[in-house]
Amino acid sequence: MAEFKHLVIVKFKEGVVVEEMVKGMEKLVSEIDAVKSFEWGQDVEGQEMLRQGFTHVFVMTFSKKEDYATFAAHPSHLEFSGPFSAAIEKIVVLDFPSVIVKPPA
Amino acid sequence: MAEFKHLVIVKFKEGVVVEEMVKGMEKLVSEIDAVKSFEWGQDVEGQEMLRQGFTHVFVMTFSKKEDYATFAAHPSHLEFSGPFSAAIEKIVVLDFPSVIVKPPA
Repeated sequence: MAEFKHLVIVKFKEGVVVEEMVKGMEKLVSEIDAVKSFEWGQDVEGQEMLRQGFTHVFVMTFSKKEDYATFAAHPSHLEFSGPFSAAIEKIVVLDFPSVIVKPPA
Repeated sequence: MAEFKHLVIVKFKEGVVVEEMVKGMEKLVSEIDAVKSFEWGQDVEGQEMLRQGFTHVFVMTFSKKEDYATFAAHPSHLEFSGPFSAAIEKIVVLDFPSVIVKPPA
């Protein structure tokens, strides 16, 4: 069965301490068993025409779509949504079953 | 050492046969050893305010940043860029060392 992924890309507002946001997310995923894995990154190539102002990526992986629903409805997630929303200038969120074509070696 | 990821999110133009684009990408990554793994997905939640018109995600994983550079400069990649660029209405690309906080179980 395909894993389900919750992908978030953002541009934070000026002055936001990104480390604190990331710590908040780390705490969040550690509290919610439904999250199978969590990774994030900051763009380092800086090709502005391609990154369109976005700088950070956050990816949560779930064993199945139902686990994502559990996460989305979890009180800790709802609580975190407030400060996170306040910190971002723009965002794109995509939720999708992951199709792996070339598997990790 | 952190894996390096090449993340592409797109909205395809009307009338584009997405399956053909995906097949082209599958062929591409199968031809280029530097690509460690490849996965993709199509958003199924359809929360337009959050997905901002974007519908598809493509993620390539590399063992190190140098492998990404090899991929980016590969003739097959350059050749594929033409038809791919012609097929998309909008795109965001982010390239980043992946930080894994909660590892896969």
